[in-house]
Amino acid sequence: MTASNTHKEQMFIGIDGGGTKCRATLFSNIKGVLGVGLSGPANPLHGFDRTLESISVASQLALKDANLDYHTINEIVAGVGLAGVNLPSLYQQMQDWQHPFKTMHLTTDLHTACIGAHDGQDGAVIITGTGSCGFALVGGESTLLGGHGFSQGDKGSGAWFGLEAVKAALLSIDGLGPKTCLAEHLLNFFEVNNAMGIAEKMAGKPSSTYAQLAPIVLEAASHDDEAAKIIVNEGASYINQLAFKLLDKNPPRLSMIGGLSEPLQPWLSKDVVQYINPAIHAPEMGAVLFAQQLNENNNASH
Amino acid sequence: MTASNTHKEQMFIGIDGGGTKCRATLFSNIKGVLGVGLSGPANPLHGFDRTLESISVASQLALKDANLDYHTINEIVAGVGLAGVNLPSLYQQMQDWQHPFKTMHLTTDLHTACIGAHDGQDGAVIITGTGSCGFALVGGESTLLGGHGFSQGDKGSGAWFGLEAVKAALLSIDGLGPKTCLAEHLLNFFEVNNAMGIAEKMAGKPSSTYAQLAPIVLEAASHDDEAAKIIVNEGASYINQLAFKLLDKNPPRLSMIGGLSEPLQPWLSKDVVQYINPAIHAPEMGAVLFAQQLNENNNASH
Repeated sequence: MTASNTHKEQMFIGIDGGGTKCRATLFSNIKGVLGVGLSGPANPLHGFDRTLESISVASQLALKDANLDYHTINEIVAGVGLAGVNLPSLYQQMQDWQHPFKTMHLTTDLHTACIGAHDGQDGAVIITGTGSCGFALVGGESTLLGGHGFSQGDKGSGAWFGLEAVKAALLSIDGLGPKTCLAEHLLNFFEVNNAMGIAEKMAGKPSSTYAQLAPIVLEAASHDDEAAKIIVNEGASYINQLAFKLLDKNPPRLSMIGGLSEPLQPWLSKDVVQYINPAIHAPEMGAVLFAQQLNENNNASH
Repeated sequence: MTASNTHKEQMFIGIDGGGTKCRATLFSNIKGVLGVGLSGPANPLHGFDRTLESISVASQLALKDANLDYHTINEIVAGVGLAGVNLPSLYQQMQDWQHPFKTMHLTTDLHTACIGAHDGQDGAVIITGTGSCGFALVGGESTLLGGHGFSQGDKGSGAWFGLEAVKAALLSIDGLGPKTCLAEHLLNFFEVNNAMGIAEKMAGKPSSTYAQLAPIVLEAASHDDEAAKIIVNEGASYINQLAFKLLDKNPPRLSMIGGLSEPLQPWLSKDVVQYINPAIHAPEMGAVLFAQQLNENNNASH
């Protein structure tokens, strides 16, 4: 881990904010990790005020975990990695926040995940959880692929697997697509007895609800269900292509993170899997490293 | 049209309620059509109170169009065809409404569309507008196929074409899918210069917004764009299958209604197109016929 060169203690807080939760890690350049906090959703695209609240609550819990008074927050340098701020308008809106920290360094959750995965060094990450995307940081140049959101993008993600499973099940029940055991599995899962029952349960549901169905597809594919295998292979093929595009940038390391990264690996190309290294730190620790890097740059320039 | 056998004048109002608008036709068994009304969305799945309001407003406008006082509404027998009421819970909720009519006969918008298309006789309809579905009414037995809603169902509909176009464009721009002119067309349409710009414009948008992109896909396919042709052929193939399943029920007539029914026909199988007959009446007139049929049955049984 990149240690701060100054001998004076400085506290940093690393925030990783996404669609379902927000994690905070409080870190001292002398004492290491002091405390952690966990709160609710923090994607400003889906709720700006809620995001500010989640960041504040996670920070408060991390300070409490470290037995520190909340008022010390204004001495802390924050690194904040947030979903959604790749959109310039949201980035600016977040920058304009009257935050409680000494300083706030803002970037995308992908950037801090990548910094964390490779301990502050160059590298690439593929994220496959509820959503999917690829990110590389090599020689100061960053590359972002995918991450266009549900249901138009995020191929190979949990939500995408869930949606494709529902589509295949509905077609199968109507006799307008190949027979698949996904139909029976979803009827049982939702405790309904026809296609409209499944449709009713899923109507208007967010990506996280679809992502809950991903294990059903992977399970069916591992039992040789043809429709499920087509879905899993199509998703895996997209993740392979994403990986090859990132490897074209010659990153020293490639990590896969998110809830689907483990279960998807058996379906990925061996040419991809051989390049996958474990992530060194969690994204919130990446946010700490990001804050340290920018803080040192700022101090050096003063 | 089935004329009422009684010589006493009875007024009927036919209501066709869907996701974007609600149409009403006021009809007298002696004088014919007296007036029409048009109001806003009336799909109880997406807003129950709004649906009741739209039905009331459309009825009020039809009465006004006929130079009748609104209070005469309690002498009118209503036939109401509504999207969403194939879900038993919504059907019951609508039935419990303290409606202003003399009597209200409730059914799905598909049922009244089918009655209208075939002048009260047996037949089948395929609806391809913002959504898609198939319905047949033969010998008292009804069959419903598809209509499971965006984005999990409604294959071959305007919204489905729009979503598939956005997906193909995003993959093309990222270099993770076949090159397609849909990318350039959508960048121009949204006046943005990258994939994230398209994603931002479409994030969280309803099916009607996606359906607006359908003409772009059909146009690109007619200019031999490979990706657009794959999308249009996949959608058309689903509609073909839907048609064959309905024709298996031996309906005397088959009609295709909705905004995509005309533009899709060149892409459909000739074996389907040869069976397509024009719809005789609009769905709201189907709702009038439905109300007349049930009213006569009720009178006969008293």
